[in-house]
Amino acid sequence: MNNLMKIAGAVGVSVLATAPAFAQEAATPPAELVSGGTAYILSTLLFLIGGFLVMWMAAGFAMLEAGLVRSKNVSMQSLKNIALYSVAGLMFWVTGYNLMYTDVSSWIGTFGIYDMQGVGEADTETGYSVASDWFFQMVFCATTASIVSGTLAERIKFWPFMIFVVVLTGFLYPITGSWEWGAGWLDQRGFSDFAGSTLVHSVGGWAALAGAIFLGPRLGRYVDGKVQVFPGSSIPLATLGTFILWLGWFGFNGASQLAMGTIGDVSDVSKIFVNTNMAAAGGVIATIVLTQIMYKKIDVTMVLNGALAGLVSITAEPLAPTVGASVLIGAVGGVIVVFAVPMLDKLKIDDVVGAIPVHLLAGIWGTLIVPFSNSDATYGVQALGVVSIGAFTFIASSIVWLAMKYTIGLRPSEEDEMKGMDITEVGVEAYPEFTR
Amino acid sequence: MNNLMKIAGAVGVSVLATAPAFAQEAATPPAELVSGGTAYILSTLLFLIGGFLVMWMAAGFAMLEAGLVRSKNVSMQSLKNIALYSVAGLMFWVTGYNLMYTDVSSWIGTFGIYDMQGVGEADTETGYSVASDWFFQMVFCATTASIVSGTLAERIKFWPFMIFVVVLTGFLYPITGSWEWGAGWLDQRGFSDFAGSTLVHSVGGWAALAGAIFLGPRLGRYVDGKVQVFPGSSIPLATLGTFILWLGWFGFNGASQLAMGTIGDVSDVSKIFVNTNMAAAGGVIATIVLTQIMYKKIDVTMVLNGALAGLVSITAEPLAPTVGASVLIGAVGGVIVVFAVPMLDKLKIDDVVGAIPVHLLAGIWGTLIVPFSNSDATYGVQALGVVSIGAFTFIASSIVWLAMKYTIGLRPSEEDEMKGMDITEVGVEAYPEFTR
Amino acid sequence: MNNLMKIAGAVGVSVLATAPAFAQEAATPPAELVSGGTAYILSTLLFLIGGFLVMWMAAGFAMLEAGLVRSKNVSMQSLKNIALYSVAGLMFWVTGYNLMYTDVSSWIGTFGIYDMQGVGEADTETGYSVASDWFFQMVFCATTASIVSGTLAERIKFWPFMIFVVVLTGFLYPITGSWEWGAGWLDQRGFSDFAGSTLVHSVGGWAALAGAIFLGPRLGRYVDGKVQVFPGSSIPLATLGTFILWLGWFGFNGASQLAMGTIGDVSDVSKIFVNTNMAAAGGVIATIVLTQIMYKKIDVTMVLNGALAGLVSITAEPLAPTVGASVLIGAVGGVIVVFAVPMLDKLKIDDVVGAIPVHLLAGIWGTLIVPFSNSDATYGVQALGVVSIGAFTFIASSIVWLAMKYTIGLRPSEEDEMKGMDITEVGVEAYPEFTR
Repeated sequence: MNNLMKIAGAVGVSVLATAPAFAQEAATPPAELVSGGTAYILSTLLFLIGGFLVMWMAAGFAMLEAGLVRSKNVSMQSLKNIALYSVAGLMFWVTGYNLMYTDVSSWIGTFGIYDMQGVGEADTETGYSVASDWFFQMVFCATTASIVSGTLAERIKFWPFMIFVVVLTGFLYPITGSWEWGAGWLDQRGFSDFAGSTLVHSVGGWAALAGAIFLGPRLGRYVDGKVQVFPGSSIPLATLGTFILWLGWFGFNGASQLAMGTIGDVSDVSKIFVNTNMAAAGGVIATIVLTQIMYKKIDVTMVLNGALAGLVSITAEPLAPTVGASVLIGAVGGVIVVFAVPMLDKLKIDDVVGAIPVHLLAGIWGTLIVPFSNSDATYGVQALGVVSIGAFTFIASSIVWLAMKYTIGLRPSEEDEMKGMDITEVGVEAYPEFTR
Repeated sequence: MNNLMKIAGAVGVSVLATAPAFAQEAATPPAELVSGGTAYILSTLLFLIGGFLVMWMAAGFAMLEAGLVRSKNVSMQSLKNIALYSVAGLMFWVTGYNLMYTDVSSWIGTFGIYDMQGVGEADTETGYSVASDWFFQMVFCATTASIVSGTLAERIKFWPFMIFVVVLTGFLYPITGSWEWGAGWLDQRGFSDFAGSTLVHSVGGWAALAGAIFLGPRLGRYVDGKVQVFPGSSIPLATLGTFILWLGWFGFNGASQLAMGTIGDVSDVSKIFVNTNMAAAGGVIATIVLTQIMYKKIDVTMVLNGALAGLVSITAEPLAPTVGASVLIGAVGGVIVVFAVPMLDKLKIDDVVGAIPVHLLAGIWGTLIVPFSNSDATYGVQALGVVSIGAFTFIASSIVWLAMKYTIGLRPSEEDEMKGMDITEVGVEAYPEFTR
Repeated sequence: MNNLMKIAGAVGVSVLATAPAFAQEAATPPAELVSGGTAYILSTLLFLIGGFLVMWMAAGFAMLEAGLVRSKNVSMQSLKNIALYSVAGLMFWVTGYNLMYTDVSSWIGTFGIYDMQGVGEADTETGYSVASDWFFQMVFCATTASIVSGTLAERIKFWPFMIFVVVLTGFLYPITGSWEWGAGWLDQRGFSDFAGSTLVHSVGGWAALAGAIFLGPRLGRYVDGKVQVFPGSSIPLATLGTFILWLGWFGFNGASQLAMGTIGDVSDVSKIFVNTNMAAAGGVIATIVLTQIMYKKIDVTMVLNGALAGLVSITAEPLAPTVGASVLIGAVGGVIVVFAVPMLDKLKIDDVVGAIPVHLLAGIWGTLIVPFSNSDATYGVQALGVVSIGAFTFIASSIVWLAMKYTIGLRPSEEDEMKGMDITEVGVEAYPEFTR
């Protein structure tokens, strides 16, 4: 009986709940009986589907960035994106997962590699396969690094960038992640960040901001107090990237429900899909209307970033808002983009793809507005989370950037930067037949 | 007990059916009993997976159109596609869903926004989460607008197009949709349109046809009785778009089974996958062979449209046909494309991407052939559906187009059209380094 | 009761558990008892999800190849990829499936078309819908043809290529497939190839190698003992293709578990996701480090192929290895690419996209290393499988290639090859506004 109940616990609360009565009769349940735990399977499946959708976001970032940089750096940006996704996987295996999730002592978990179970073994104490959870959490970690890649494009060398990715995905992201999702001190204080407006997007944004400051702007970007426009090489690729990210976000937010073994859970996942979609739509509409009014033209790159800002804004709480509130939350994200992009340029912070407005600022907005729809959260604790995670990430990132700046160096030579890094570092031009 | 039976019915026959032997012990089942409803979860999951696949079709249309227009209008086409998808979501929330599905009085549902349930609440009377259904139906609505976008490319201003999208997705599509999928008068007469050859694709096609007629052709397209070829700017992007649409169609047709809680349902979903794929393959083969014979070259844009026409053709009945019949039904769709594209040009109807042959004509074909494989349908009622929905959509669309034509105007100035709308309306060139 | 328990075991504990109260009414359980089988639904769903992910790989190959060929052959490559996917579906329906899976007499199955069941009918003897299995196996078959397409790009005419695809997908691939997955002689000897390092990837690679030998290199590729570099036209499209393939591989390997109706199965699928991802990451890191050291630049096309080689390497056994072993297995795949690409050029075997190193050589490596992690396999039998399948495919492919070479001819005229096949065979330039 004891064993049976333990097993029942393993296969999820729905099963447990519906189980009670016939336990005694099944004194010797066949092995397959337990194996069948439908809730376990469904929650694991949620992680797997959500995981491959978020993995696909790595391609979205790659296309977005390839479209928004100049053609002389497109191969480099392609390379960085596939490299950072790979390194994030390695680091999350070597240190990240356990730092973030295992025996978190308020501020940090344990050091050590993630040790996957063997063939045919299942995780009977969790209600889902831990390997599926690892996969799902890993792709979140990779997303953080993707954000940095876009901001710093066109003037950071490959290796310093990759070293930063190692630190970010192996240590910085998992540490602040442990404070909340690892059940650390912020979680204990009631901080609320459903799918990572702060834990993922702002963390990436803070790291990118620190990098942009210490790296400096691209050559010729700010001349005599004027901003030189460096138009992106391919708007359709940037559009494709945005659509990929939008699609992936259904996994990002939806699977952050973390369970699909009850009709309550799957209904919540459904609501998250709707709200996520509508926040993005709100961001799109807001940027269309605003840029039409302000500039008499509809800047499609602003609109793409408006969609993404809408998505980031709803990520901290995609479940509790009404549909209308989701539209508004996303629309404010879009408004933030329209005003923040020129403001960063005034500060001479060169953010190539607009990742700081999209991921950092909209991430802060999304986190702070959570109490509006979710009464379990308070504005004070939300602000505490934003500030503490921001301070840690910005300071730690700055140290890493500065350490590299004064040792191995961050930037290519001026001559190499003008040539473009596709020639100088990759050796493969992105469009050899179209340009020049 | 009565209530319990009702609930049991709601959560699907599988649960009910497998119940028998250990019943007596659980005299007072806990509330969570229903929560466990596996059929509910699985059907909801079908909507979610189908929904994100069809959402992805929005990217497919964007890439297809970006590839088939000239480079001076690629940013505009990217913008329109992300805008229309967003607006479709908003309108389907504000009016569309309830017009189409709620208390349909034969001809129309009710006015009012879709009101989503709260956190943790589930829809125990439906057998699936209504939010997941809303999401799935919304992306269908958006598809209709995507079709219009392609036909009218390169010569319609942004705002008139968007106003039409508002009307189409908020009113026209939901009204005719209510006639059939809302259980209105056409459904009562036995009309059969499984996943929307008529309700989605022909509706989009009729709206596009009306637009193309009142908008007129692109400047320089028909000169001295000759058709000037305006080649698309990127065949690989058009190919990518076609593959995306093909992929998305598994969700479009497969999830239109609307349930996955029994082995009969999931087996039918599987068959739909097979038939959907084979109809597309039939369309591809037919256009390859035909264009090889007729033109001595294999026109890849015809082949891409052949795949899509095959998909549209099977959409009215993707379940009942044999595999072989599916290939043939799709192949006829391909044949229609090869003959209809030049015919439209003879009529000086300028359909930039070939959406009218693909979505309208193949949609009619697919709808009319349903009785061939599905004996529940009759040719007369199928024709009645095609004509009634076509007449309503064409007339209503025409009124909207004409009203705008004689007020705010539909087209840019000739000078602006020659420059391309990327410069005049978007202000962002799609490929600033490649062209000129 | 015994029967009932057996069925109950099959359909999963949740169903079993939710059964209690309404049992008496169902004293004689209806036929749908089996229909409710949750395990059946979940395994079928695994095939459907895995199937659409692998279908998406067809787009991945299309983009990879469109990016790696010169712009004058991009339309042709787009056409070939959509054509081969369609033909593979047809041939797998007409002959492939039954040759591979039905009544395999050690060396071959039966001739005849796949006959799908009717509406509402399910496959109660299999534990999943056969239609879903057909779909899943079909997309594997198509993958084999995609591999050939890349190697032979830029100098093979459309129709000879398509004829080869007919033979490969309708006969060659299914025959060797039957030896292992059809439970034929290799399976009986204990050969182990979980998801097809040999059965799919090497088979495609052998067919491509034979084709490359008899077709000869592109004009001007090897001049005076020197290799002329023909750079690909679009690195971002090649990158997109790689990401698509990486995404699709979760379906390729994950769904090759073939069942998801127990927690053991879904846990194994999860582990396969992790290992598959990490092997690709290993391939990426290895190629980055190696090309940096060897060439002082990081060749992004090598890195893309490194990812793919990592994926191919883990495909023979994605379940048994530890995470660390998976990284290493994939890394060796990447190393193979870096050394094999120039080696093929020394042999004047012109492999346009590097498919032979990626699919054939890494496929052999992946197959031979299986016993390292899976004690059920032996090195001898693994080698036997590699050699026997390789010999059959290479010889049979050679016969087909030679037969065509000396009859209809394989190559366009030199003049046509220089012009590019987009103009000569397709009649549609890929980028009419960018090149020349």
